[in-house]
Amino acid sequence: MAKQAKQLDDLFEDVLKDIYYAEKKILTALPKMAKAAQSRDLKAAFEKHERETQGQVDRLEKIFGLLEQTAKGKKCEAIEGLVKEGQEGIKELKGSPALDAALLATAQAVEHYEISRYGTLIAWAQRLDMPQAAKLLQQTLDEEKMTDEALTELAEAAINAEAQEAA
Amino acid sequence: MAKQAKQLDDLFEDVLKDIYYAEKKILTALPKMAKAAQSRDLKAAFEKHERETQGQVDRLEKIFGLLEQTAKGKKCEAIEGLVKEGQEGIKELKGSPALDAALLATAQAVEHYEISRYGTLIAWAQRLDMPQAAKLLQQTLDEEKMTDEALTELAEAAINAEAQEAA
Repeated sequence: MAKQAKQLDDLFEDVLKDIYYAEKKILTALPKMAKAAQSRDLKAAFEKHERETQGQVDRLEKIFGLLEQTAKGKKCEAIEGLVKEGQEGIKELKGSPALDAALLATAQAVEHYEISRYGTLIAWAQRLDMPQAAKLLQQTLDEEKMTDEALTELAEAAINAEAQEAA
Repeated sequence: MAKQAKQLDDLFEDVLKDIYYAEKKILTALPKMAKAAQSRDLKAAFEKHERETQGQVDRLEKIFGLLEQTAKGKKCEAIEGLVKEGQEGIKELKGSPALDAALLATAQAVEHYEISRYGTLIAWAQRLDMPQAAKLLQQTLDEEKMTDEALTELAEAAINAEAQEAA
């Protein structure tokens, strides 16, 4: 056994910092995605999710508070990569009918990243006997899943068709 | 409208290359994760998924063939970040009872990345009237979802408890 081996509560904190970093990053990316989106519905979806994301950041800060810690992020390479992909897409696809489809794909990859992280955190919070944290995390997970479903509906209903048929 | 604006078929190819790169990367990471895993069930799950991943790579190569193209990857920063996280976890948590919980969390983040990418590709393949590609992609998506569920079951059943109670 390693000295001072990390335990589940250490991992919980690590992933909490990872998703806190990710949410803050997403908060800066969403207004750019909303501005770039061509479809009004997609623009509205990004704007709505920006407001939700602010609430999700607040929940994470509450959980840091439950741990008697100051909220602090830890660089998350996966989100860095996805946000970079989104920014490159905005630049590369400017004026293309496929821009919205690309924005949607990136947004859904981000949602799935968050869904996996919140799923993990909820399981660990339950195991660590932190019911208040688990409840806050569950509220966010529910929102993320609803956002992902809403994006899927947008993708299926209109955006892909526009990308294919326009231009 | 931009000159030579990208269309949905270009995006489809971009994301196909992205997930091809990701699957090949995962194929090199899974044996290391299986080797590091402490629980026999988790080890077996990673070994099983390594075999599945080889089949998923083969399917992607078939789809490149349908497009009359040679299979080619495109660096995917999100997977780079997740695989790096997994490798750091293996090093940092060696000998800790929390190692398996960390491996599981990373594996589930990878699964969710893949689930979002295959979901996107299926929607686009349908729109692009590529039923054969959509069918192959759907087979992989089903496998990825089953893998994610199996990992959730492992996480809930044993691994988290071990991480918390041991040491």
